[in-house]
Amino acid sequence: MGALDEGHFHEELSNGVKHCCSLELGFEQEPETLTIQDAVRHLLTGLSEDFNREGLKKTPFRVAKALRHGTRGYRLKVKDIVEGALFHEAGLDDGNGHAGGADEPVIVRDLDLFSYCESCLLPFQVKCHVGYVPSGERVLGLSKLSRVADIFAKRLQDPKRLGDEVCSALYHGIKPAGVAVVLQCLHLHVPNLESAFLNPNHQCWVKTLVRSGSGIFENENADAWDDFAVHLRFKGINVHRIHIKDSTERCWCPSRSSSIPKISCMLESADQDLVATVASIIRSLGEDPSRKELVGTPSRYVKWLMNFQNTNLEMELNGIPCGSRLDLLKPNGEVGHNKEQLHSELNLSFWSLCEHHLLPFHGVVHIGYLSAEGINSVGKSLLQSIVHFYGFKLQLQERLTKQITHTVTSLLGGDVMVVVEASHYCMISRGIEKLGSSTVTCKKLGRFKSDPAVKDRFLQSIPNTKLEG
Amino acid sequence: MGALDEGHFHEELSNGVKHCCSLELGFEQEPETLTIQDAVRHLLTGLSEDFNREGLKKTPFRVAKALRHGTRGYRLKVKDIVEGALFHEAGLDDGNGHAGGADEPVIVRDLDLFSYCESCLLPFQVKCHVGYVPSGERVLGLSKLSRVADIFAKRLQDPKRLGDEVCSALYHGIKPAGVAVVLQCLHLHVPNLESAFLNPNHQCWVKTLVRSGSGIFENENADAWDDFAVHLRFKGINVHRIHIKDSTERCWCPSRSSSIPKISCMLESADQDLVATVASIIRSLGEDPSRKELVGTPSRYVKWLMNFQNTNLEMELNGIPCGSRLDLLKPNGEVGHNKEQLHSELNLSFWSLCEHHLLPFHGVVHIGYLSAEGINSVGKSLLQSIVHFYGFKLQLQERLTKQITHTVTSLLGGDVMVVVEASHYCMISRGIEKLGSSTVTCKKLGRFKSDPAVKDRFLQSIPNTKLEG
Repeated sequence: MGALDEGHFHEELSNGVKHCCSLELGFEQEPETLTIQDAVRHLLTGLSEDFNREGLKKTPFRVAKALRHGTRGYRLKVKDIVEGALFHEAGLDDGNGHAGGADEPVIVRDLDLFSYCESCLLPFQVKCHVGYVPSGERVLGLSKLSRVADIFAKRLQDPKRLGDEVCSALYHGIKPAGVAVVLQCLHLHVPNLESAFLNPNHQCWVKTLVRSGSGIFENENADAWDDFAVHLRFKGINVHRIHIKDSTERCWCPSRSSSIPKISCMLESADQDLVATVASIIRSLGEDPSRKELVGTPSRYVKWLMNFQNTNLEMELNGIPCGSRLDLLKPNGEVGHNKEQLHSELNLSFWSLCEHHLLPFHGVVHIGYLSAEGINSVGKSLLQSIVHFYGFKLQLQERLTKQITHTVTSLLGGDVMVVVEASHYCMISRGIEKLGSSTVTCKKLGRFKSDPAVKDRFLQSIPNTKLEG
Repeated sequence: MGALDEGHFHEELSNGVKHCCSLELGFEQEPETLTIQDAVRHLLTGLSEDFNREGLKKTPFRVAKALRHGTRGYRLKVKDIVEGALFHEAGLDDGNGHAGGADEPVIVRDLDLFSYCESCLLPFQVKCHVGYVPSGERVLGLSKLSRVADIFAKRLQDPKRLGDEVCSALYHGIKPAGVAVVLQCLHLHVPNLESAFLNPNHQCWVKTLVRSGSGIFENENADAWDDFAVHLRFKGINVHRIHIKDSTERCWCPSRSSSIPKISCMLESADQDLVATVASIIRSLGEDPSRKELVGTPSRYVKWLMNFQNTNLEMELNGIPCGSRLDLLKPNGEVGHNKEQLHSELNLSFWSLCEHHLLPFHGVVHIGYLSAEGINSVGKSLLQSIVHFYGFKLQLQERLTKQITHTVTSLLGGDVMVVVEASHYCMISRGIEKLGSSTVTCKKLGRFKSDPAVKDRFLQSIPNTKLEG
């Protein structure tokens, strides 16, 4: 179990704000909300954006709402959840004349949660498995395990801390023989602008697996873990191989990976101003920006955000940084149809930032075009560069699709089709939590629009993507 | 598209109660909430239960809260969702000198929703795929597609009506070129008490697939469906094969299947009183119990609920109806350990009703026991009968596990282990919506408790179940 003692949880367990799945009424006028909105306007200016343009006008409010909703755990109390949900169940530790003592665990598997990474302020996904061994003939309503876990997920977190806090809260809240928590965590790794162009095999996800135990699960080699392990087996999890990290280890968050040089040296003085702005957001969420784990967070967030700065440059082909430029030959529009070839460039990865919520969306782009036979096809790396160019901005998926299509058309003539498949963090975090949902947009031009056979040939070439995350 | 015209949606689109993901403050004192609580107490009495016992004391409140939360769509307005979420996106239907006209669809796939079946009042699961083709250069914030769909899911519904209502609301709300909705719906089919005993191969789920289209999707053979179809292909859905039902067809709900004789004749007069009680619940949710599709719902619900009546009978073995009684030989406890055999009866299905929420939970039971070599093992059908006996009650999974264990022990001696894996509707509907979560409980006695090797051999025999739903 973690470093959190019962004293700390006395506060958590005391009566507090009534729990509620939405924000309190009137939160729009609260000073914290107004502070966050001001801060977001400041960040938008730092991105060289006009926060009065239509798509951004309500962004400060949306971001404030999402952040306060996503960190509502600071305003919730375990006691309000657990109280009235502990039930007497006779005979649950009767021992029945056999080995006696503690009873068997009650385990709830596969609870999907979302949390905010304390190192970079991006949401991360959590698959939570939680169990406890009843004692004193008291069982907890099953949904409360999920609700208690969610109180701690809805804060700025690190996987190990999250596991420890859920474990401690349940242990002190329901006084069982023991509590065990296993978390599978998934953190999106958005590459920075340069590495997106240079490293086509960028790993999209960082995964980690943590566990925490209290009472009879306190010892990580305790027999009690064996039963728990069996019931997680079907998930391919071997709890005994789960490393119990000590505090000196490197954080999992990709923004803290050692490949990035000391951030403070890299930030301009204008950015230092933005850093203070992000610190004010953290304070408004109810956190202390000087807490050890949060000290570098504003800098990391600003550095990350600046990947999506509005350059105000029209893309010029000569200016595209791409790994290997191929000869670019524009096909002649008068080549006979029967001599044209369909080219498909599939699964070009992209990264972008939703301009409504300042949350990432990412996925793949499929580009189809016709070119005359014998003409070199355009290099995949060039198309990938175009995709990145339009991805690293404040965007909408609809606009991204259109912009890629129009640029490809200017290169390759008018017979172009673009399909974009994306996962949006604004759909899977916030109040929506539509995990597994994905959005498809497309744009057809020329023969892809007029000739269903051409369109169908291209569409059939698109693999059945399963977007992870 | 369905029979709902713009006039009907004028009301939906008008300003109304501010949308909010939780219940309004003070709902506990509202007359509708109090009516539902009274009704639930009445139903509990009808189940021969004491609504003052600890586990049931708060059940009326929990049921009222869940039902009002689950039908909050009656109090929400589409206009509040859509307003301020329509954005101008230049050039989205510029046509670019080619075929011109309407633009390409924006499709959001795999939105998980829950709804309440208007025929039986049980929740059903919905995987919603929704798309629209922008017009007038206006795009909708993606999450609003989910929020609008949820307004209609959170009512008493039928799949086809749900699809039509979502489609109409989006069509009138955002005035696009067209809207397409495809719903994959999954309805739990809880067998009645008799058929659970008699039909071991009971089909657990009823599935249906519906679609609805408006504007350029109005014609079910329209080309516009082709593009939509391609982007759902990966889900194995062929939209052109989706049957568009007409209103004369049989309802999908298993409670309306033709195998059940006319319900009204089967209900006692005491039950008729309960039927009126359920009608009062429907009225309190904001629905008209005399609406054509709801007329038989209270009777069907009461008939279903009475499967879980408290019989106050201790199970007697002679009284167990089981398909094929095998000889039952109690193993001699003094047989040497090395002559004992481990028997595993796996995946015995069970159905039960959560006493906290009056919502079903269901899954599988695995039973392990030791018996002396040469002694006939107990028949699977007998164990299955024991499981059903304890399942068809108001239950907790923890208690069910204990009761099965103790009964099996009384038959087979003290070396028994029981594992129960279940999906709880109270975890996947209501405000929790932890789809895919499952709960494991177990109970070990005798050698299964004292000898890890015996326990491990049994646990290793349990297959990696993937509970559906």
